[in-house]
Amino acid sequence: MQTIRIVLVGLGNLGRRLCEVLSEKEPLLRDRFGLELRLVGAADSRGAAYDPAGLNTAEVARLKRAGGTVADYAGAGRQGWLAPDLVATTEADVLLEASPVNLKQGAEPALTCIRTALQRGMHVVTPNKGPLVLAYQELHDLAAAHGVQLRFDGTVAGGLPAINIGQRDLRGAVIHKLEAVPNMVTGFIMDMLADGLPWEEARTRAYDSGALEGDGSWDLEGWDAAAKLVILANAVLGYPARMEDVVLTGIADMSPDVFRSALEQGRRYRLLARAERRADGRYDLSVEPTPLPPDHPLGRLGRKQMAVVYSTDIYGTITAMIDEPKPVPSAATMLRDVLDILSG
Amino acid sequence: MQTIRIVLVGLGNLGRRLCEVLSEKEPLLRDRFGLELRLVGAADSRGAAYDPAGLNTAEVARLKRAGGTVADYAGAGRQGWLAPDLVATTEADVLLEASPVNLKQGAEPALTCIRTALQRGMHVVTPNKGPLVLAYQELHDLAAAHGVQLRFDGTVAGGLPAINIGQRDLRGAVIHKLEAVPNMVTGFIMDMLADGLPWEEARTRAYDSGALEGDGSWDLEGWDAAAKLVILANAVLGYPARMEDVVLTGIADMSPDVFRSALEQGRRYRLLARAERRADGRYDLSVEPTPLPPDHPLGRLGRKQMAVVYSTDIYGTITAMIDEPKPVPSAATMLRDVLDILSG
Repeated sequence: MQTIRIVLVGLGNLGRRLCEVLSEKEPLLRDRFGLELRLVGAADSRGAAYDPAGLNTAEVARLKRAGGTVADYAGAGRQGWLAPDLVATTEADVLLEASPVNLKQGAEPALTCIRTALQRGMHVVTPNKGPLVLAYQELHDLAAAHGVQLRFDGTVAGGLPAINIGQRDLRGAVIHKLEAVPNMVTGFIMDMLADGLPWEEARTRAYDSGALEGDGSWDLEGWDAAAKLVILANAVLGYPARMEDVVLTGIADMSPDVFRSALEQGRRYRLLARAERRADGRYDLSVEPTPLPPDHPLGRLGRKQMAVVYSTDIYGTITAMIDEPKPVPSAATMLRDVLDILSG
Repeated sequence: MQTIRIVLVGLGNLGRRLCEVLSEKEPLLRDRFGLELRLVGAADSRGAAYDPAGLNTAEVARLKRAGGTVADYAGAGRQGWLAPDLVATTEADVLLEASPVNLKQGAEPALTCIRTALQRGMHVVTPNKGPLVLAYQELHDLAAAHGVQLRFDGTVAGGLPAINIGQRDLRGAVIHKLEAVPNMVTGFIMDMLADGLPWEEARTRAYDSGALEGDGSWDLEGWDAAAKLVILANAVLGYPARMEDVVLTGIADMSPDVFRSALEQGRRYRLLARAERRADGRYDLSVEPTPLPPDHPLGRLGRKQMAVVYSTDIYGTITAMIDEPKPVPSAATMLRDVLDILSG
């Protein structure tokens, strides 16, 4: 029996769902891999809990579902204990950093937590795009220097192993073109507008479904898709892109008429992220609402689907798609990354 | 600079194309990975060649394209030198076994070559379904006992990383259902029959395109798809299936009327391989021509496309599809597997 000690930072939807997955998967991990993933520490914005004998993941999830804080965890929680302190002082093997994207605050405190963990010799798994968009190369080098792994399969297209497929299975290939629909809510909204709903109603429904958050600009202006494209470019294409390299057009200013007339011609709009290789080996990067015909590999995606298409020299064209009716897969990517790290 | 010594057995289309890929990728492998894949030995049915300083992969490919044998390789070739002898005596790091499927001869001599290589401490990469179908567990255990890897991503669905995705990215999941269209030529033929061609004409066109070989029964009676399903079951589902566990229906006896009337109702037939999990954790396995509606993830595959769909508990439903207009990707899977072995 192998025991891996985990610290989890961020207990919003992603972190809380991961606790549920870990709780549910305890018997499978033990039986299939002889593995115990022991949650020794957890932090949210109000405090933290620490127990080297292991926190009960189901109890942590329960506290969060009830709107509380892990600081109230009986016997182990403490109010005001901040994530960076927890990471700096806890003995653990893996940090899971599951905070929401927070570029305006320089992706802090997530970036500090990740740096600290890597420097302390912990592997890091994160579905948080912020630190990777701001500091991909620095974090990559830091992990290498400390002989640990940094994995982030959950940053792009939820539970779809888009990064893993690109990094591993296309390792010996040249990728001529990458096309992705990595953001779900924009497709949902454009479909509603195409079907005749006014903007306000479409926006309201997107909020009500939980797909849209905050002021909506992160998704509607295309920043989310652009961040995912930047991560794909760095991780899969080996191209050191930054946000300012992406030619970005969001959907916020578009008239519903555009979507309606496209639909009349049999095309559905999706917010398409593209990287196209130039003759000099660099890539042109763009995010743009694009009408897709039904015979395009991304032309028939439903509102709960995301996908990526890799056009390569020696592996043909490979499309990977996920149908994610519930948001569990996005959280479960952290389990995927942990198991990947442990396997080799 | 790392040098990996390779022995390649089987120089039909797959093996010859791999030589072309290795020749073309020499600069990329050196620049991207500091890696030299050195072909030290190669064998076809007429003889073999061996040179510890490395055979020229472009020259091996040229000999084969001209209809010759690698035994004629100047200075290194020898007539009548058989593959098992080459594998038993050559110092190398990896065996690539690329012989055609040959179940009636007990997958020999491929099976002997693979056993010998594993026992001698060589990693083995093979896109040959035969040895895996007959001896999956034995070969798996043999590789583990000798601390080497056995990789076979090319056995299923050509260049699609169907096995890799299942084995790695779904490691912590329970797969409720697996559906695959892992055979291209049956889809091509059923489309032609649906479009009104008679059987003889469809069969002739399939032969002329190179998609159908031998007496055609391996593909048309569903054995190819069944073999791929057996490998997926063992490798991905952890289910020790054998060929006799697959309920198998081929397309050879089907009337074109069936395909035509399905098409009139908007459905296209594909030879569908399925594994469905029962309550007791075992799987029901079947291969059967199946009419698929356009909204099925496999319902719109073209004649050069293959795909697999994994329905899971924590990763939603993941579909991976390949468009393989030329057969290069099927050969390039051997490069993928070699790079995978070296990276992990």
